[in-house]
Amino acid sequence: MGTPTAPKRLERGLFITFEGPEGGGKSTQVAWLSQRLQEEGYAVVATREPGGTPLGEGIRNLLIDPQYEKMEPLTELLLFEAARVQHIQELIEPSLRAGKIVLCDRFYDSTLAYQGARSLSWPKIVHLNQICVGSCQPQLTFLLDLDYEAGRQRLAQRCQDDPSQLDRIEREQRSFFEQLRQNYLALARGERGPTESRWRLLDASQPRQEVARAIWREVLPFLESRS
Amino acid sequence: MGTPTAPKRLERGLFITFEGPEGGGKSTQVAWLSQRLQEEGYAVVATREPGGTPLGEGIRNLLIDPQYEKMEPLTELLLFEAARVQHIQELIEPSLRAGKIVLCDRFYDSTLAYQGARSLSWPKIVHLNQICVGSCQPQLTFLLDLDYEAGRQRLAQRCQDDPSQLDRIEREQRSFFEQLRQNYLALARGERGPTESRWRLLDASQPRQEVARAIWREVLPFLESRS
Repeated sequence: MGTPTAPKRLERGLFITFEGPEGGGKSTQVAWLSQRLQEEGYAVVATREPGGTPLGEGIRNLLIDPQYEKMEPLTELLLFEAARVQHIQELIEPSLRAGKIVLCDRFYDSTLAYQGARSLSWPKIVHLNQICVGSCQPQLTFLLDLDYEAGRQRLAQRCQDDPSQLDRIEREQRSFFEQLRQNYLALARGERGPTESRWRLLDASQPRQEVARAIWREVLPFLESRS
Repeated sequence: MGTPTAPKRLERGLFITFEGPEGGGKSTQVAWLSQRLQEEGYAVVATREPGGTPLGEGIRNLLIDPQYEKMEPLTELLLFEAARVQHIQELIEPSLRAGKIVLCDRFYDSTLAYQGARSLSWPKIVHLNQICVGSCQPQLTFLLDLDYEAGRQRLAQRCQDDPSQLDRIEREQRSFFEQLRQNYLALARGERGPTESRWRLLDASQPRQEVARAIWREVLPFLESRS
């Protein structure tokens, strides 16, 4: 694939999203894949939701702040969508138009999975996603699947067993996270809409290097078909 | 109307909103009307949008911060609606259910007038307002109408002629404020939907005490019909 520094340019951008519960290693995988792609000469933008822009990070701070425990499910949904619209218009679409590879830690599937585990109706979430996302669709989505116990164990390690370190969403009950996982699996299996070939379901309880290898195997054909 | 301190309880709450450009004296009128109603023995909640709740005030800070000049019109709309949903659920509806009079400095008509002066389609704004507001409708809405020059003059006084004191929205161009005023007048005249009898159009270039008297004359029949 050429010398490590030879810049490669895709004819059109490639949009890859990473989904799954906290503790599944999304941010690590995004960082590793970003580094590997850059070593191969690709222009990469690694970003996350909610956030990704200065305003989006401001919205993120509101969303995760434990002081807002009274946040209404619809308020939460609208805040995620507000951050997303800004992210798409300010960062994601311009990067894709410039032929870059955009790696995003969470995108609209997170909204379906997480807000779908609250009291909001599925059609309402799908509808707001459509209004806000439009045609900005990922070509490839990795679900880093992990069961509740394993995810909480990793989260506890990160927080050094201090629950006050958990953000507003991480403080939810077990039933919320169980529902969340089922929502993700249903999405990846095409049970909540048309089966989409963009999903890749990975077992995130494996060693992270194994997961990274599986991700690279899936990404390669997309690079070859586009460069 | 009884001694000033005799508490009066409405059988059902009364929701009054105040609309118009900056400089029209909305916040002064809300404060004066609130005081007068309390002197008459009514339980009053005086609030504002965006804001009105701790989370809403956090969203307000994002909305008015001049550093976010790249804010997308749809992002802005979603942030206003997010604050509004929280405001309705956490403060407005519980207060109305408790028989209180809610005075609100701006409500969804502001979204129609302001965001309608941007590049968003009117039906999209109406649609999002409907999703977020549902059946929480004001019974009485005052439009404190003021032309561009007069409004800017008052704003300049408030900011002591220092434009860096203006917030993100106050920094808009003249054409934006002209369009905003036309949107408000069209709403109050029933030209942008069914004519609604809740609108009262007041000339805010009058002395503020005159405006206050006009407001009180309009509010009285609502109190008499409800207590």
